Amino acid sequence: MDADQFRQFGKAMIDYIADYQETIRDRKVLPSVEPGYLQHLLPDEAPQKGEPWQEILKDVDRIIMPGVTHWQSPNFHAYYPTACSYPSIVGDMLSGAIACVGFSWMAGPACTELEVAMMNWLGKLLHLPEEFLNCSEGPGGGVIQGSASEASLVALLAAKDKFVRSIREKDPTIPAAEIKGKLVAYSSDQSNSSVEKAGLIGSMMMRLLPSDEDGALRGTTLQEAVRKDREAGLIPCFFIASLGTTGTCAFDNLEEIGPICQEEGIWLHIDAAYAGTVFICPEYRYLMKGVEYSDSFNFNTHKWMLCNFDCSCMWVKDARYLMDAFNVDRIYLKHNKTSHLPDYRHWQIPLGRRFRALKLWFVLRSYGVEGIQEHVRKDIALAKYFESLVKQDERFEACTLSLGLATFRLKGDDSLTQKLLDKITADKTLYLIPCYYRERLVARFVIASRMTQKSDVDFAWSVICEHADQIVAPKIKKMESVIGDKYKFDAIKITTNTECLEKSK
Amino acid sequence: MDADQFRQFGKAMIDYIADYQETIRDRKVLPSVEPGYLQHLLPDEAPQKGEPWQEILKDVDRIIMPGVTHWQSPNFHAYYPTACSYPSIVGDMLSGAIACVGFSWMAGPACTELEVAMMNWLGKLLHLPEEFLNCSEGPGGGVIQGSASEASLVALLAAKDKFVRSIREKDPTIPAAEIKGKLVAYSSDQSNSSVEKAGLIGSMMMRLLPSDEDGALRGTTLQEAVRKDREAGLIPCFFIASLGTTGTCAFDNLEEIGPICQEEGIWLHIDAAYAGTVFICPEYRYLMKGVEYSDSFNFNTHKWMLCNFDCSCMWVKDARYLMDAFNVDRIYLKHNKTSHLPDYRHWQIPLGRRFRALKLWFVLRSYGVEGIQEHVRKDIALAKYFESLVKQDERFEACTLSLGLATFRLKGDDSLTQKLLDKITADKTLYLIPCYYRERLVARFVIASRMTQKSDVDFAWSVICEHADQIVAPKIKKMESVIGDKYKFDAIKITTNTECLEKSK
Repeated sequence: MDADQFRQFGKAMIDYIADYQETIRDRKVLPSVEPGYLQHLLPDEAPQKGEPWQEILKDVDRIIMPGVTHWQSPNFHAYYPTACSYPSIVGDMLSGAIACVGFSWMAGPACTELEVAMMNWLGKLLHLPEEFLNCSEGPGGGVIQGSASEASLVALLAAKDKFVRSIREKDPTIPAAEIKGKLVAYSSDQSNSSVEKAGLIGSMMMRLLPSDEDGALRGTTLQEAVRKDREAGLIPCFFIASLGTTGTCAFDNLEEIGPICQEEGIWLHIDAAYAGTVFICPEYRYLMKGVEYSDSFNFNTHKWMLCNFDCSCMWVKDARYLMDAFNVDRIYLKHNKTSHLPDYRHWQIPLGRRFRALKLWFVLRSYGVEGIQEHVRKDIALAKYFESLVKQDERFEACTLSLGLATFRLKGDDSLTQKLLDKITADKTLYLIPCYYRERLVARFVIASRMTQKSDVDFAWSVICEHADQIVAPKIKKMESVIGDKYKFDAIKITTNTECLEKSK
Repeated sequence: MDADQFRQFGKAMIDYIADYQETIRDRKVLPSVEPGYLQHLLPDEAPQKGEPWQEILKDVDRIIMPGVTHWQSPNFHAYYPTACSYPSIVGDMLSGAIACVGFSWMAGPACTELEVAMMNWLGKLLHLPEEFLNCSEGPGGGVIQGSASEASLVALLAAKDKFVRSIREKDPTIPAAEIKGKLVAYSSDQSNSSVEKAGLIGSMMMRLLPSDEDGALRGTTLQEAVRKDREAGLIPCFFIASLGTTGTCAFDNLEEIGPICQEEGIWLHIDAAYAGTVFICPEYRYLMKGVEYSDSFNFNTHKWMLCNFDCSCMWVKDARYLMDAFNVDRIYLKHNKTSHLPDYRHWQIPLGRRFRALKLWFVLRSYGVEGIQEHVRKDIALAKYFESLVKQDERFEACTLSLGLATFRLKGDDSLTQKLLDKITADKTLYLIPCYYRERLVARFVIASRMTQKSDVDFAWSVICEHADQIVAPKIKKMESVIGDKYKFDAIKITTNTECLEKSK
């Protein structure tokens, strides 16, 4: 493919993408294919001769699209959002074209320095403690990881290395393997599965401590676990706090946990994968009170902050622990320049890395801080609005509401809610998934797409009620749904209405 | 940014990218900026209000480009290639637009199934053992990882888990920590730094065994190391063979190593990060003789196979070991569909994953098998041609030649070659890096860009000689350089010429 063909193909793809996004509401969010559908549509072997791009684009429609789960559809309410925005896509295109591997400063000065700059911008936006910023005096700084899983693992490995070193500095006769075998990590039973996986991969005992009935881990629980482990001769080493758990978006009590970690010398890592974005809005910063106790902090701009996957932002107060843990320099990676700028390969698991800061830069400039704040506030208001709809129907129970996630269930046995979810999934118009809350099955309703509007929430609620009607007879008249693609959503109005509704109860 | 603005911005970026690629030869391959250059060009904080895309694109030229090391320039001869091709960029655009997180079949049926299909296509193209293919009867299959680093780590962790389980099945009284502390991994002293890092991260003793004078690890060396470790009560567990070492592209002797691993029950992982692509050409498959002994195999299509980073292809003979090692299922990740298709989240370290199979599909279809073969053969012929130029100048020593990498040095003390490289780097017209070969410093000359032609090699040689003239006086008349951007390169002719040259000596 030469440059001229690329100009044609690339521009055709731009139009394809814009068309896809503009009409995504018209597609069922879940595909109708059965497992194995694709093998019958593709030849068994790669073609010998090259094919024209027009054929490939045609096959995207014929082969790929029927098998896509439309994560960007406003009817997608499962998991948490995975971001997709126009400026981010364009930023990634440029990253693909420059195609540098920025593992050291020399390998890509702009790649390293823009990342440093963006992590400073973002750290300031979130009001993270000064020590986390590369632009502060100390050894702290930020780095873009691929995922929160990676960030948790990197933090755990740094903590592990730190402990082994410091214990062996005091007594070099203790074998490293013996120390490693005694290190203990903690998190809550509500933390993401990737936390448990970090313990598995990093070979560290991981205790998933019971959260309270709101899904938050409390200080006393941690304190008790640490005490028991010390008595058993073990070494408490690492704690992963969840700000915004995966199930219900609960927040661990950092103000209780932080001082305990500090006193016990435990590395405190904060996983705010989804919720972290909200700290761009001052009115939600109370949710991260205690962040000053943490050693490392991570959130995914590729969830709620409009940057395409993968762009997981991590800060550490002392990056030297990362470098100690990961530095295995060889001659071919050395370069002449000496500088205070990070050689990011020592901050992460893989050697290679893309120019991911570009999309972050494009997004922050295109939206501006206010644009991102507006996006976040809109989603929170929509979730609140959804909860108000649930509360109007006596068959339902509104269970939790936190940021852009509301959970609810049909009153009665779990099997009713399960049946409801099965019906919704079979219908493919909406996508919702369950979790457990206070030992009961609840459905999660997440505002996941950048494009979700009030009319989409109304539509979702009408579909949910339609299915519920087949399980439990309607007890009250359903609210009239306002369905209309072009409905202009007014966040402030909704917030006020919802508050009124709540007060009137 | 709305869809219309995206259409404009996206198309402007397509043109920007095409222009960049078409004029990349005119830029110095290394940038002239000093560390810290970028902080003076950017504001200290993110903008409050969104900005028009035109401003952003203008700043790419003003702020980013001056700090780019042009990995795609035909004058880039450092490291190994990092792929960049037009169809791959377009494939990635589509992946960004669909923006699904394909951690399970249901989360993205097309994402999972296209990956399975592409890994089958590619496995067949490379003539990998049948058991590696998902389309074979057994439990094997392929998966796209982010990097060879990740693949090595995944294989190591799977091997570790396999050993701990099987030993504890026989004797459950042995603590897992005790077993883990005794496991040993092996690789050669020529393997990539990421191999050592895998041992570090996976907490496994990693012995870097001495390679022979050609940079290959031999069976006797491994056998001896294993014997010693068994005598010391340790448990040999894992071996990473390099097919194409980072320094000189040497090949470990698989035919010797394979049977030893089999007999000793050691997991054999093959890291063919760069060289793997060459097995698409039948005439080079002799270089992977013994591959049938391996348990896992990895190569980076994002190096030599024209797929943009990250697209590291890994196959395992028994994927159940990966699933055992990584499976930490939670309710929100479960789905109703049961199928024989992989839930890829259990095959990798992170939970999330992009739709990377798209770019692989686009590249294989755009180029066809023949197009990729031609690309590979051209690069090999160019490296051979470069060696022939080196051999014509008596001041130089041609040290190694393997695939697209030739190494050479100035005769005499290492300091001369170091001086030469320093001069070249300071000049910024070419980019070469050193490595050690037989304990002497050599310069690596890699055909790294998809666009490199014979005229670029001539140009590079003329620059190298110009700098060498300032270090050692010319001894013979330099060959006339043929410089010309539009020179049509004929691989077969060059190969023949080079062979004639060699025979005539």
